[in-house]
Amino acid sequence: MKELLRFSEIIEQEIGKLSYPKYPKSLYKPIQYIMGLQGKRMRPILVLMAHQLFNENVDSAISPAIALELFHNFTLLHDDIMDNAPLRRGNPTVHEKWNQNTAILSGDVMMIQAYQQLAKVDSYLKEILDVFNKMAVKVCEGQQWDMDFENRKDVTLSEYMKMIEYKTAVLMAASLKIGSITGGASKVEQNHLYNFGLNMGIAFQLKDDLLDVFGSPETFGKQVGGDILACKKTFLYLKATQLADDLTKSTLENYYTNKDCSIKKVKVVKDIFQSLNIEKHTVEIIKSYYIKATKHLEVISSKNKEILFLFSKKLMERVS
Amino acid sequence: MKELLRFSEIIEQEIGKLSYPKYPKSLYKPIQYIMGLQGKRMRPILVLMAHQLFNENVDSAISPAIALELFHNFTLLHDDIMDNAPLRRGNPTVHEKWNQNTAILSGDVMMIQAYQQLAKVDSYLKEILDVFNKMAVKVCEGQQWDMDFENRKDVTLSEYMKMIEYKTAVLMAASLKIGSITGGASKVEQNHLYNFGLNMGIAFQLKDDLLDVFGSPETFGKQVGGDILACKKTFLYLKATQLADDLTKSTLENYYTNKDCSIKKVKVVKDIFQSLNIEKHTVEIIKSYYIKATKHLEVISSKNKEILFLFSKKLMERVS
Repeated sequence: MKELLRFSEIIEQEIGKLSYPKYPKSLYKPIQYIMGLQGKRMRPILVLMAHQLFNENVDSAISPAIALELFHNFTLLHDDIMDNAPLRRGNPTVHEKWNQNTAILSGDVMMIQAYQQLAKVDSYLKEILDVFNKMAVKVCEGQQWDMDFENRKDVTLSEYMKMIEYKTAVLMAASLKIGSITGGASKVEQNHLYNFGLNMGIAFQLKDDLLDVFGSPETFGKQVGGDILACKKTFLYLKATQLADDLTKSTLENYYTNKDCSIKKVKVVKDIFQSLNIEKHTVEIIKSYYIKATKHLEVISSKNKEILFLFSKKLMERVS
Repeated sequence: MKELLRFSEIIEQEIGKLSYPKYPKSLYKPIQYIMGLQGKRMRPILVLMAHQLFNENVDSAISPAIALELFHNFTLLHDDIMDNAPLRRGNPTVHEKWNQNTAILSGDVMMIQAYQQLAKVDSYLKEILDVFNKMAVKVCEGQQWDMDFENRKDVTLSEYMKMIEYKTAVLMAASLKIGSITGGASKVEQNHLYNFGLNMGIAFQLKDDLLDVFGSPETFGKQVGGDILACKKTFLYLKATQLADDLTKSTLENYYTNKDCSIKKVKVVKDIFQSLNIEKHTVEIIKSYYIKATKHLEVISSKNKEILFLFSKKLMERVS
């Protein structure tokens, strides 16, 4: 994974080079803060990895890569307000550290900065904008669905799948597609990269859902059972309500409606999940999305595919 | 002003044609709502007016014009949250009618939709994006300055002038510049249009400040003295603190720090303004910006300038 390290370094370096006007301080300090919290930088790295399939000189992919990281971080700022989240990457969220108005406005500027980075490209500007804009709208729609679901009792599994596709997967898909565009891929290749990312993104989110309940406390890094305590209607929960008999289903639903935040709640829900074989069901569906994803990568003819296969394998095998 | 009516109709028609996905309802209903509240549509009309100076067929200016109206309305949604405003154009604001999260997210989508409209142009995409992005960042900076000023006692007149330039004038300037670009203007002409709009925008905002205090209750349409009651450090207030002797200045400052919302407060402040001839000073500076603006329009050679002269004159002479 020498290449991965190289891409990761390029991205960190470019993010470090971003310059922020000194004033108004209250607008730019939060941007510097959130961009400085070490994230996985997954989306910009995906841009570079898709680009190098078709062109080994990644220079022209850098500004769109940074655009995707800026956009991702913009969504974090605004989502954290909406979700009332106190922490992000282990640090206080912007609306906690500063205030809510700051988080709104700094987020707005980050979205504009993302477009400024996109506008730097020498070629394919219109194509890139089209992919980016469609993605950006879907991400917002996904966030809206996610919020709507909190107040609904009748969320279906297929609605949930669409929500995570929009909220999480399209951003990975668009990152890969945009990288393929700057690399000079054909339309057909672009769409394969998009679908590789889309399926990988869904698998990625389902793996998140799974780790939250069945991750090992030693390696997970976050509190196991967090989604259960927050009453999040995840894949595991919705699948369980589908498979459970009436009595188990109503027990599960009762525990979920209850905002009680005890270890006991986590244990009862986890026991129900185990009795219904939910871990196995989830692992299977993750695998099926992973296989779907890799099929789209297999048809691409490029000698530089290995890094993407490895990267996606690593995402699937992660324990945190 | 037959042309103005025609442009206004084109804009209304195009806004009426905007289609919104049916779901998620909570995301798109607020956008339809705010776009449906009849505004002046000043910015998109400016785009068309600038365009027709150079090309009478305005078709290619329509989507950027709509982009500017969408962007403007996005800023209203987010500004209204930050300013805790209950009403917009006489109707409940989006965060009041729905909730704050809705106003954040619907605003975000509107900004993306603005970029979708921009991306529709067949020519000059990069040039237009550059103007738009620079403008958009400045508008956010202006809003941040405006919020910062609320908590500062040492705001200077020149800081205030910069704030209104960023928060209000650059959007008019960019509208005119973008219209001139789609119309095929030269760089020099583009910059004249920008500066025409910038000076006009500053004059426009100062006229707002003036009408708030010295407007006639019969024609103004809003409560006279609203800025005074809200302790807004406007041009009139800052100019008065500059001209007043120490005693008057401290009386004025005391009244302003006081969040008291009485008619008496308005009367005392207005009396001080009158004793310092603030109305005359403000009228003079408005006139000077207006003259600066028109000089930039005078050098443009086009047989279709009259409409812009008339439009700007109308803005200056308005009583509401």
